[in-house]
Amino acid sequence: MKLLVTGGAGYVGSVCAARLLEAGHEVVVLDDLSTGHADAVPAGARFVQGDIADVIGEVLAEGFDGVLHFAAKSLVGESMQDPGKYWTGNVLTAIRLLDAMKEHGTPKLVFSSTAATYGEPREVPIPETAPTHPTNTYGATKLAIDHAITSYAQAFGIAATSLRYFNVAGAYGHIGERHAVETHLIPLVLQVALGQREHIQIFGEDWPTEDGTCVRDYIHVTDLADAHLLAVETSVAGEHRIYNLGNGTGFSVKQVIDTCREVTGHPIPAVVAPRRAGDPAVLVASAERARTELGWKPERADIAGIVRDAWEFTKTRQGA
Amino acid sequence: MKLLVTGGAGYVGSVCAARLLEAGHEVVVLDDLSTGHADAVPAGARFVQGDIADVIGEVLAEGFDGVLHFAAKSLVGESMQDPGKYWTGNVLTAIRLLDAMKEHGTPKLVFSSTAATYGEPREVPIPETAPTHPTNTYGATKLAIDHAITSYAQAFGIAATSLRYFNVAGAYGHIGERHAVETHLIPLVLQVALGQREHIQIFGEDWPTEDGTCVRDYIHVTDLADAHLLAVETSVAGEHRIYNLGNGTGFSVKQVIDTCREVTGHPIPAVVAPRRAGDPAVLVASAERARTELGWKPERADIAGIVRDAWEFTKTRQGA
Repeated sequence: MKLLVTGGAGYVGSVCAARLLEAGHEVVVLDDLSTGHADAVPAGARFVQGDIADVIGEVLAEGFDGVLHFAAKSLVGESMQDPGKYWTGNVLTAIRLLDAMKEHGTPKLVFSSTAATYGEPREVPIPETAPTHPTNTYGATKLAIDHAITSYAQAFGIAATSLRYFNVAGAYGHIGERHAVETHLIPLVLQVALGQREHIQIFGEDWPTEDGTCVRDYIHVTDLADAHLLAVETSVAGEHRIYNLGNGTGFSVKQVIDTCREVTGHPIPAVVAPRRAGDPAVLVASAERARTELGWKPERADIAGIVRDAWEFTKTRQGA
Repeated sequence: MKLLVTGGAGYVGSVCAARLLEAGHEVVVLDDLSTGHADAVPAGARFVQGDIADVIGEVLAEGFDGVLHFAAKSLVGESMQDPGKYWTGNVLTAIRLLDAMKEHGTPKLVFSSTAATYGEPREVPIPETAPTHPTNTYGATKLAIDHAITSYAQAFGIAATSLRYFNVAGAYGHIGERHAVETHLIPLVLQVALGQREHIQIFGEDWPTEDGTCVRDYIHVTDLADAHLLAVETSVAGEHRIYNLGNGTGFSVKQVIDTCREVTGHPIPAVVAPRRAGDPAVLVASAERARTELGWKPERADIAGIVRDAWEFTKTRQGA
């Protein structure tokens, strides 16, 4: 298949682009490099630099079998301070993409949705049938796009899949997390191990969990990439399928920090700070639907392995 | 207060504009007349004809205390066939409005949301805490706007209210329902009484309800207008409050038709057709929150009175 990967110069997008190439697909990456890195675009992919809202019609006019849409603004804190950037940058852009797919008859779409569409969970692990009450603007914009995709899939026969990620981590060779503004736990902890940061902050140790710190579901970025490959290969015209992607096992903030200490051999000082508003105590996915319907099977669920891959990438980058 | 009423040439918007004028507020109506009628704009309101996406910045620049945002595409069937019209026409337009309110510091917003944001109800009567799983594009676009309003209210201190209407009916003097494409039960039944339509269709009489036809909650348009007045007068900066508006009492399609027969004296032939996809059996509001927090008290909950006002309006229009 000939596939367009938007945001393919970012962390998850570039790993997925590499995985699609390995599987024998033709890949074009579209990215405005506002947060991505040109050198993350995998060899073998054609790279187009541009803003989706401006160029998507022109790009899709050359004919594609599908789009994997990763491009997005994705900082939760920023989304609360500057919601217009997210409603315009994420939702408006997605509407332009969907309109262009309709116009050019692009048959398939895989969208990067998020666990943040659910908000505070009423049941754990979280199934896809759970209520969607996002507690931040980032999650609300992703939910609006999920709903828009349902509309377009039904009306125009698009074969669509939304994948709702829980916490993505790990690395794939030379491709890993390197955000200008890093907000994710594992890369932040590893920055302490590298001496770039004095300590790691733990936001609350009085949560109703076993050790009092928040519990999250970590998924290896290559397992995530496998799910995208399965989604684009198995989706059905006119249907919009939604799958949670996680391992179904939660690790606490303290467990993750301990794992990082073991992997890096660094003491990694931790400082307890107050809880952050909007943080749920536990976020763990039920990925039963992805296992059953997509045939997806995460192969790197081990948290030590996830941290080890992230650490190898981080050290290499640091040395580079 | 100086208030902007978008969609103020439409059915609900024009009745609300009239009610705001009676309460002593200054009213400017902005409407593109794509579905509204210039002669529905109440005397005493200044009328600006234009498209929100084009002119909202210029209009709000003159300084307003608040916006009542009624302008929208609102045909459920059309929304399923042509979703782009709804995602662009409703959601993009609302984002432009919110951006302009932020830019010009407009402090208050009241938004016409809908019971369609809930979709198939899990409990009846429906409270505002119910899950929001819209089953049609119209409802999904209104939900996206509700979420966008929450974002902007929190970030920029806007005093915002979303009112989720159930079935609005009745008339207010010379202002009533006259849609080019009529999809609402009471006006359709009254068209049969006027001889403009041979019969009324009943979509399914095998629903799990007392008489087998769908049950809906009807609210008089003047009661609805009162709720808007209360909302704009009591809202609080930085908060986005959401209220269901209905009478908490359901009437079946057959009960509504029988009431129309009594009021008009016309036999009104009815024909049973298959169920329509996406129609829930029962949609009834819990409006407890509006009663408690807004101090709202519907005064025309009687279905016969609602039909009588609609009939008086319809006959007068017909004669005009």
